[in-house]
Amino acid sequence: MRRRHKPPAGARPGTLVIPADALPPRITVMDYTPAKVRESQVTDPKALRPFAGEGTMTWIDVQGFGDEALLRRIAEIFHIHPLAMADVVNAPQRPKYDAYESNHLLICQMAHASGEKVMDLEQVSIVVGKSYVITFQERHGDLFDPVRERIRTGGGPIRTMGPDYLAYALMDRVVDGYFPVVERLGEVLQRLEEEILDDQVEHTPAQLHEARRHLAALRRLVWSQRDALNAALRQDGTPFTPPVQVYLRDVYDHAVQVMDLVESYREIAMGLMDIHLSTVSNRMNEVMKVLTIMASLFVPLTFIAGVYGMNFEHMPELHFWWAYPAVWVIMGITAGGLILFFRRQGWIGSGRSRREGRRGAP
Amino acid sequence: MRRRHKPPAGARPGTLVIPADALPPRITVMDYTPAKVRESQVTDPKALRPFAGEGTMTWIDVQGFGDEALLRRIAEIFHIHPLAMADVVNAPQRPKYDAYESNHLLICQMAHASGEKVMDLEQVSIVVGKSYVITFQERHGDLFDPVRERIRTGGGPIRTMGPDYLAYALMDRVVDGYFPVVERLGEVLQRLEEEILDDQVEHTPAQLHEARRHLAALRRLVWSQRDALNAALRQDGTPFTPPVQVYLRDVYDHAVQVMDLVESYREIAMGLMDIHLSTVSNRMNEVMKVLTIMASLFVPLTFIAGVYGMNFEHMPELHFWWAYPAVWVIMGITAGGLILFFRRQGWIGSGRSRREGRRGAP
Amino acid sequence: MRRRHKPPAGARPGTLVIPADALPPRITVMDYTPAKVRESQVTDPKALRPFAGEGTMTWIDVQGFGDEALLRRIAEIFHIHPLAMADVVNAPQRPKYDAYESNHLLICQMAHASGEKVMDLEQVSIVVGKSYVITFQERHGDLFDPVRERIRTGGGPIRTMGPDYLAYALMDRVVDGYFPVVERLGEVLQRLEEEILDDQVEHTPAQLHEARRHLAALRRLVWSQRDALNAALRQDGTPFTPPVQVYLRDVYDHAVQVMDLVESYREIAMGLMDIHLSTVSNRMNEVMKVLTIMASLFVPLTFIAGVYGMNFEHMPELHFWWAYPAVWVIMGITAGGLILFFRRQGWIGSGRSRREGRRGAP
Amino acid sequence: MRRRHKPPAGARPGTLVIPADALPPRITVMDYTPAKVRESQVTDPKALRPFAGEGTMTWIDVQGFGDEALLRRIAEIFHIHPLAMADVVNAPQRPKYDAYESNHLLICQMAHASGEKVMDLEQVSIVVGKSYVITFQERHGDLFDPVRERIRTGGGPIRTMGPDYLAYALMDRVVDGYFPVVERLGEVLQRLEEEILDDQVEHTPAQLHEARRHLAALRRLVWSQRDALNAALRQDGTPFTPPVQVYLRDVYDHAVQVMDLVESYREIAMGLMDIHLSTVSNRMNEVMKVLTIMASLFVPLTFIAGVYGMNFEHMPELHFWWAYPAVWVIMGITAGGLILFFRRQGWIGSGRSRREGRRGAP
Amino acid sequence: MRRRHKPPAGARPGTLVIPADALPPRITVMDYTPAKVRESQVTDPKALRPFAGEGTMTWIDVQGFGDEALLRRIAEIFHIHPLAMADVVNAPQRPKYDAYESNHLLICQMAHASGEKVMDLEQVSIVVGKSYVITFQERHGDLFDPVRERIRTGGGPIRTMGPDYLAYALMDRVVDGYFPVVERLGEVLQRLEEEILDDQVEHTPAQLHEARRHLAALRRLVWSQRDALNAALRQDGTPFTPPVQVYLRDVYDHAVQVMDLVESYREIAMGLMDIHLSTVSNRMNEVMKVLTIMASLFVPLTFIAGVYGMNFEHMPELHFWWAYPAVWVIMGITAGGLILFFRRQGWIGSGRSRREGRRGAP
Repeated sequence: MRRRHKPPAGARPGTLVIPADALPPRITVMDYTPAKVRESQVTDPKALRPFAGEGTMTWIDVQGFGDEALLRRIAEIFHIHPLAMADVVNAPQRPKYDAYESNHLLICQMAHASGEKVMDLEQVSIVVGKSYVITFQERHGDLFDPVRERIRTGGGPIRTMGPDYLAYALMDRVVDGYFPVVERLGEVLQRLEEEILDDQVEHTPAQLHEARRHLAALRRLVWSQRDALNAALRQDGTPFTPPVQVYLRDVYDHAVQVMDLVESYREIAMGLMDIHLSTVSNRMNEVMKVLTIMASLFVPLTFIAGVYGMNFEHMPELHFWWAYPAVWVIMGITAGGLILFFRRQGWIGSGRSRREGRRGAP
Repeated sequence: MRRRHKPPAGARPGTLVIPADALPPRITVMDYTPAKVRESQVTDPKALRPFAGEGTMTWIDVQGFGDEALLRRIAEIFHIHPLAMADVVNAPQRPKYDAYESNHLLICQMAHASGEKVMDLEQVSIVVGKSYVITFQERHGDLFDPVRERIRTGGGPIRTMGPDYLAYALMDRVVDGYFPVVERLGEVLQRLEEEILDDQVEHTPAQLHEARRHLAALRRLVWSQRDALNAALRQDGTPFTPPVQVYLRDVYDHAVQVMDLVESYREIAMGLMDIHLSTVSNRMNEVMKVLTIMASLFVPLTFIAGVYGMNFEHMPELHFWWAYPAVWVIMGITAGGLILFFRRQGWIGSGRSRREGRRGAP
Repeated sequence: MRRRHKPPAGARPGTLVIPADALPPRITVMDYTPAKVRESQVTDPKALRPFAGEGTMTWIDVQGFGDEALLRRIAEIFHIHPLAMADVVNAPQRPKYDAYESNHLLICQMAHASGEKVMDLEQVSIVVGKSYVITFQERHGDLFDPVRERIRTGGGPIRTMGPDYLAYALMDRVVDGYFPVVERLGEVLQRLEEEILDDQVEHTPAQLHEARRHLAALRRLVWSQRDALNAALRQDGTPFTPPVQVYLRDVYDHAVQVMDLVESYREIAMGLMDIHLSTVSNRMNEVMKVLTIMASLFVPLTFIAGVYGMNFEHMPELHFWWAYPAVWVIMGITAGGLILFFRRQGWIGSGRSRREGRRGAP
Repeated sequence: MRRRHKPPAGARPGTLVIPADALPPRITVMDYTPAKVRESQVTDPKALRPFAGEGTMTWIDVQGFGDEALLRRIAEIFHIHPLAMADVVNAPQRPKYDAYESNHLLICQMAHASGEKVMDLEQVSIVVGKSYVITFQERHGDLFDPVRERIRTGGGPIRTMGPDYLAYALMDRVVDGYFPVVERLGEVLQRLEEEILDDQVEHTPAQLHEARRHLAALRRLVWSQRDALNAALRQDGTPFTPPVQVYLRDVYDHAVQVMDLVESYREIAMGLMDIHLSTVSNRMNEVMKVLTIMASLFVPLTFIAGVYGMNFEHMPELHFWWAYPAVWVIMGITAGGLILFFRRQGWIGSGRSRREGRRGAP
Repeated sequence: MRRRHKPPAGARPGTLVIPADALPPRITVMDYTPAKVRESQVTDPKALRPFAGEGTMTWIDVQGFGDEALLRRIAEIFHIHPLAMADVVNAPQRPKYDAYESNHLLICQMAHASGEKVMDLEQVSIVVGKSYVITFQERHGDLFDPVRERIRTGGGPIRTMGPDYLAYALMDRVVDGYFPVVERLGEVLQRLEEEILDDQVEHTPAQLHEARRHLAALRRLVWSQRDALNAALRQDGTPFTPPVQVYLRDVYDHAVQVMDLVESYREIAMGLMDIHLSTVSNRMNEVMKVLTIMASLFVPLTFIAGVYGMNFEHMPELHFWWAYPAVWVIMGITAGGLILFFRRQGWIGSGRSRREGRRGAP
């Protein structure tokens, strides 16, 4: 669970909570027309004012929330509603689409499968205006580099279309980012399945629990993301023009595909828990069988031996020369009978062949 | 479960049930315009009559239901419907929004995580009129102090806007109050998870049950609260004006976030129960293995010893000088063979390494 | 399960099935205006004819279905549809609202928590006409006495309003009757919970099953009742006028509250089953531990004793004077080592402290 | 599972698949006006042509699908769509309502509880035209005899109303046929419950599984049937006139009642499985207790006896005259102590009283 | 899980990902009027240009995606949207219906039950234009041969109707292809059920898991397919004309039937898991009973023998001539009493009769 940093209860709406370890903001501006692209780094928010009016298409990327005054200036210049700004900064929020008077807010959660962490989330907020798109990210990073590259090279319709297409391209990048995470969870499940079928069940329940937790979190996330996409597509006053809606529908389809994968992995995880529990039961059964066989075999024999260990004066059997071998014969017959009984019960068989058989699926 | 105090079946509608231990009412009036604020304590309901008409914005806070006559007078002055008044007094009711002819009723449930109780609930009823807001609380308390402070200092738009904004601010306070409760339940689950992974499973099922019960109660509560917010936002004749609707939508989003948290904790709690059951099974397995190993090892040996404890006259082995050491050798070989078998079955291993391994998650 | 008495398959619609033990009908008429009330017992249905036309408000209460001809006469006088009449008589039906040409039918199920039975159901059918309300009950009883009393004393608006208000008052009485039943089921669960936490688990599963069955039945019932109320509120041509709709909404809210309670008890019951199963597992664990400790402790010692019970001629140890005490020392060390092992495994502890600990919940 | 006979994949639409063992068709015609009824057996489909036009009401009942040419002739005469005819013949289909240009198709599944089979299904297809109703059944039978009788005697409105009323009467018969099946399943569950509470759990899981399977199948069936009824009631162009809709709503209500019963039996079946599993666990517990008590009691005693069976030369105890009785005393004390311990653990009690207690439910 | 081949995150929309092992495209053209049919193999996409305009009905079948340039040429000629083309090539996609400006895209998943694989999927994409239908398949194959044959022979309305009817015929073939797969899964379940009832439970959990996995995958698939059919039927601008909609509704019904079968198999699979777990528990019970009987029988007897094996000097019993037979009598009585107790507990019975009983279902 990520720590949610949010204002104290009862605070006035629009309060921004900047965590102590917030990074200093880095502002990159990409201003482009079909003909040319101009990139620049900005430090003074005043330099952004020209882009607020209609004119060339502009993409402003803000990374790091360490300077509240600067964020407030940007919000003021682009008429970002205080509540929208609070949602941007007070991460994490659920993915959502909100329409405001002068612009639209899209909250997304980017997922990475970085190093040790199976699922590392980062909030990406996209503000879509008449002729600009502003993206806000908590950390410095280069996740949108492929999109930036497409603007630079002018490949595809990206430079000829408006802010809605740019917003689409960014959201496409976000949703595509879920696939590697799901696939990694799929690999974890595959490894656990192999372990379970090989009877290596020591850490399985905790690890399955961990995987199911991630899947549940991802499911909630993608569900919200899908709803946000749907709202952005269908609500009155959507910023997405019909030609771009075709593309957005494609992103929506991808989100549904992620959902599908997550659902199927959830079912597999549940099935694995069942197999695991069944395996544990079977192993207990095996242990019990060994105990039962050993005890049932030797306890009667020991009893027979005990009888002839008694010290009664008058035990005629003790004096016959054939008594001792006869006792061995009796004990042999007893043991043989019991072994026959266990074999008929199916408790004695070759353990190895059974384990291999378990792998042979339909 | 809180005791529900409600009128006997068949009583005429609008019957108020004042519990014997109800506190005496305390009425605080806050009358404000954008320019100034006047606060006063009122004991005679007559003094409230001027605020019923349109004019300055007024917030009347009633704490304690110990005086039925007084409550009936207030209802009369502000034209509060008898059924609305019954919902206010006969707590607890589910959170809901009801529109009446002269005003609107919002029933909320405030949650605290006080001292020993994980979840302490108190009903807060908000009556929204043309130029007034009346809040009713069962207990004396200062939960709305931050809002009161904002009115006093005039921070934000609170003094320039109508009763709908005040109602929003109060409901925002209520919904934000759920977060600490959920977080405390999250901590309980985290502690239980650590205990389960450390095999300290004695009280776990009952405590998990307790936590799940709280989560289920909270879920039902927030669900109703969310529905009430939705109804207040969307029903015809809503008292919330479009600019305030933007703010109310934000409260709605917070309620959805609480729901999300509660849902994820519910899933974690269910997973923990699974791990717990699996742990119990594994422990039984360990116990059985020890029993099986000990019994299987010594029962055959005891049998051998028993054989040579027999008192037959004719047992040639007893008289060979090498017989006794030979029996020891035979018993050693038997024990060694069994230990080898147990090792091949994987029943003998270092217990400690396994327990540590269980913590290593994917 | 109550026996459903219904016509044979293929019978013509509107067939009434009067059970053999049906009670003789008792008809009570209450005719009232805002000014005065007239009560009378009627035996000849002809006497009811004047009340079918518009005029004063009339409440006709029919208790007992023992006379088919009489019931058919009433149906004829008030133009009750044959299918409606069949639903009234062929109880039990699901709670529902049906609109017919000349009147409206409301089927309700009244619940009592009488003596030994946790849940005793009786069908109450309400026919709402222009200026009359007819209620049908299978048994003689006085469940509606509080309403009757309110009409007599003229308390509240009941005498000034139409048949819809009377119908509301009756349904309010029905829905309020669910609360004691739910509360009684809650007490059963509480008792079971205490038993389970005290390890008195003998009859628990069957009793839990019984309670869950009642809760499931109640849930289905209240669900239908709620749907019927909703249909009566919202369908075109509803007999409920807007002022009475406010009151009916209140009954609807009560039904939702019952649902809420039932749902929470269902979840508690499910959680109790989990705790019970976990308790059974834990008890098995305890039993196994005792067995393992006893067997593992004495089996090796018996083996040692057995060795020196052998009758070999050449066993040098037997002749040393210190051999016997030495064997005792060896056995003591063996036992001590095993006890140490069991203590390290946590199998030996004070049983009482554990049981008490189980009660300490979060 | 009934074998589905259907055309090979890719066959042209409307292909009829007549199974090899199909019965020869028997066609019964019932032509009636309010005044008179004419019944006849028809073998040549040409004789049916007069009934296709508007005129008197006609009910044509076709039993047995053994003659494809004849079926095709009927379809041609009454303008039955090839796809409709395929649904009629290629049974089983899910219950459904389909509107075609010249008539309407209602597919129903009739259920019987015949002899050994708990649930025997037969498809009944009803084609509703302007002035005719055609019913198709796979087998010869007299399920609709009550309806036929009502037409003959003219009881009720059946002869004065159109084809929609006849279709209603037939569907009423079909839905009423579900009740005996559900009730029989209820009896099976009741028997299983008694067996489980009496600890006779040998065949229970498989039989419960069988019952749940039937309930699940029935649920799906009635669900579809209900949906079909709803579609027939609400879709534009429904053949059911408003007066008949009142009757059809009644059939719909019956279907909902069957659903309710099925749902409650499903829940009971699930609860029984829980009780069964709990009973199995309890029995294992009992077995374990006996083993533990016996082993724990005698293993220490055997050890003591073993000690004094050792052959050491120097064992002073062996020579005291009081040693033997002393050993008996020691063994008695040991056994007594253990029995006391088991009694305190609650492992020794009267088994019978417990079993009886299990039946005493709340 | 099939490997999803899809473009890297952030790639420009419409990127085609041709796998390395893609087959070379084979293009078959079928151009027909009601009067005649012309079939041809095409290698140069230019030859397809005449079919893009309105005129005769044309079916173009493309098998194999090995040539990106060729696919792009086809897309260009028939104005297939880049996103549509990407969905066609970047398989697998979920079944769906998408409307584009100049044509419509239907994505289907074909299922086979080939050789060893229970479920082998292949994506079939259908592009429906004004006077043409283009189908895309990854592999070379002859799945649509029955449709092709119907065109050739002119059976049915296929040659007189437009591209919507052809699309219907193809989708009918696809949906009918699910039945054999479901039936094969049903056979697997039936085999598993027999194994479970015969107590052959070694590989069952893993195989059940496998089957449930296939059922879950199939369920998701058919669900999407059904949704796609529904969208194609109901969305504005659907390419399906009313007469063909009747046929498409039939395909929809088939999809619902597959869903029904899959759902019922899923429930059966879940029930089988329950029976399996119950069987494992019962077997453990049997093992425990044998152990308990053997140990409880012989441990007391061994104790008695042990007592008279003690070497005390003063044990009067040892010297009586009747002592030895007396001990045998005592041991006989002890054993008999225990056997009686076990019989009364129902632990001793004939194992075979029980197993047969288990098969006798209600």
